[in-house]
Amino acid sequence: MEVSKSVIRRLPRYYRALGDLLKKDYSKISSKELSNIMGLTASQIRQDLNCFGGFGQQGYGYSVKELYQEIGEILGINKPLKTILIGTGNLGKTIAEHIEFSYNGFELIGLFDNNDRVIGQKIANLEIMDINNIKKFCIENKPSVAVLCIPKKAAENIAPILINSGVKGFWNFSHYNLVLYYDDVIVENVHLDDSLMALAFGVNSKINK
Amino acid sequence: MEVSKSVIRRLPRYYRALGDLLKKDYSKISSKELSNIMGLTASQIRQDLNCFGGFGQQGYGYSVKELYQEIGEILGINKPLKTILIGTGNLGKTIAEHIEFSYNGFELIGLFDNNDRVIGQKIANLEIMDINNIKKFCIENKPSVAVLCIPKKAAENIAPILINSGVKGFWNFSHYNLVLYYDDVIVENVHLDDSLMALAFGVNSKINK
Repeated sequence: MEVSKSVIRRLPRYYRALGDLLKKDYSKISSKELSNIMGLTASQIRQDLNCFGGFGQQGYGYSVKELYQEIGEILGINKPLKTILIGTGNLGKTIAEHIEFSYNGFELIGLFDNNDRVIGQKIANLEIMDINNIKKFCIENKPSVAVLCIPKKAAENIAPILINSGVKGFWNFSHYNLVLYYDDVIVENVHLDDSLMALAFGVNSKINK
Repeated sequence: MEVSKSVIRRLPRYYRALGDLLKKDYSKISSKELSNIMGLTASQIRQDLNCFGGFGQQGYGYSVKELYQEIGEILGINKPLKTILIGTGNLGKTIAEHIEFSYNGFELIGLFDNNDRVIGQKIANLEIMDINNIKKFCIENKPSVAVLCIPKKAAENIAPILINSGVKGFWNFSHYNLVLYYDDVIVENVHLDDSLMALAFGVNSKINK
C-alpha cells in the first residue's frame, strides 16, 4: 500500500487525538468534530482516512476505538520493534528514560557507549554495554532499529556496522545525514538545533517587522 | 522579506555545513561542492541562496565565512532572544543543560516548575523558580521565547499568560497545539512521540514488504 508521506506524518496525530477521546469515553466521532480537535478540515480528514480503506459510516461517523486500533495497526505499534540506543550522554540518557518506547511500537533491548566510566551502569533497567561488542550483539539479537545519540563522526563510523547487521531504521539525533549515503534505510531525523534556529528566524522576523 | 518555509527550513543546514567548513579552514566553496556535502542539487543551492540576495560570484563560488555570517544574521543568531523554560522534569532538564541555547540565538534567563521539591534547585546555572511567579517575571524581564516541557493541560493553562506577557515564540515539546488557538505566535513543535511513530510505520512497511 502506497500512502503519501504527509498522510503518514498526520497518522500519529490522529492516533494521539483518538487516544485522548478514548480516555474521555467517546465511542464515536464525526469528521467535523475530529476536524475541530485537530485543526484540519473535515474533508481533509475524510480524505486521509480513506487512504486506508475508510472506516467511517455515513451519518454515524467513526468508531473511536476501531479507528484508534486500526491506525495503531497501520503504524505497527502493536508489534514492538527491537531497538538499540547508542550514546548514553545527557541526551541519550533522557531519551532512554523518558520516551515510552513500548507505547510507540518499540522495545528497547540494548544500550551502548564507548565511555569506560558508564559501561556497566544501568539506565531504564538495561545495562550499558561496550560499543565494541555491538556487532556481536546485533547478530545475536537482531535489532531492527537504532537510536543515534552520538556525534556526527561517531555516527558515520557506526552506521555501516549497524546496517550490515540488519538494522533497518534509525532515529537519528546526530548530524550525520544517513540518507545521503544509504538509500535502503528508514531515517527519522530529530535535529533539535535546526528546530531552534528556525524558531529564532521566525521570532526575529516578527520582532523586526 | 518573504521567504518560503522550505528555504528557511534548509537555512540551519546551510549554517551547520558552512560552520563545519570554516572549522576545516575552507575559505571558498562552489555550489557544486556544497551540493555534494548537503545532498541537494547545485541549482537548488543557487536558488536558495538567491532568495537572500545571492552572495556567490560567478567562477569563484561562495566565501564560506561571509555566507556563514550572512546566514547567521538572517537566522538572527547574533542577537540572542531572551528565553524561559517551563517544566524541569527529565526532558526539560536535559533541554536546559544539553542544548547550546547561546549558539543558536537564544539566551536562557529563567526556569520554572510547579513542583515544590525542585523549586530553588539549580540547572544550567539558573535557579528553578515557582511557576506562580512567572507573570511577574515576564513583565519585568520581557522574554520573547518560551520552551514548553510540560503536559498538554499545563501548556493550555500557561499559554495565555505567556502570550499576554509578550512571549512571541514557543519551542513546544508539549502536545498542546498552540497554533490552533493563537494565530499570532511562532511555534516550533518537537513531537518526539510522533517522530517515533512515523519511524515505526516506515520500518514496519519495509519489513512486511
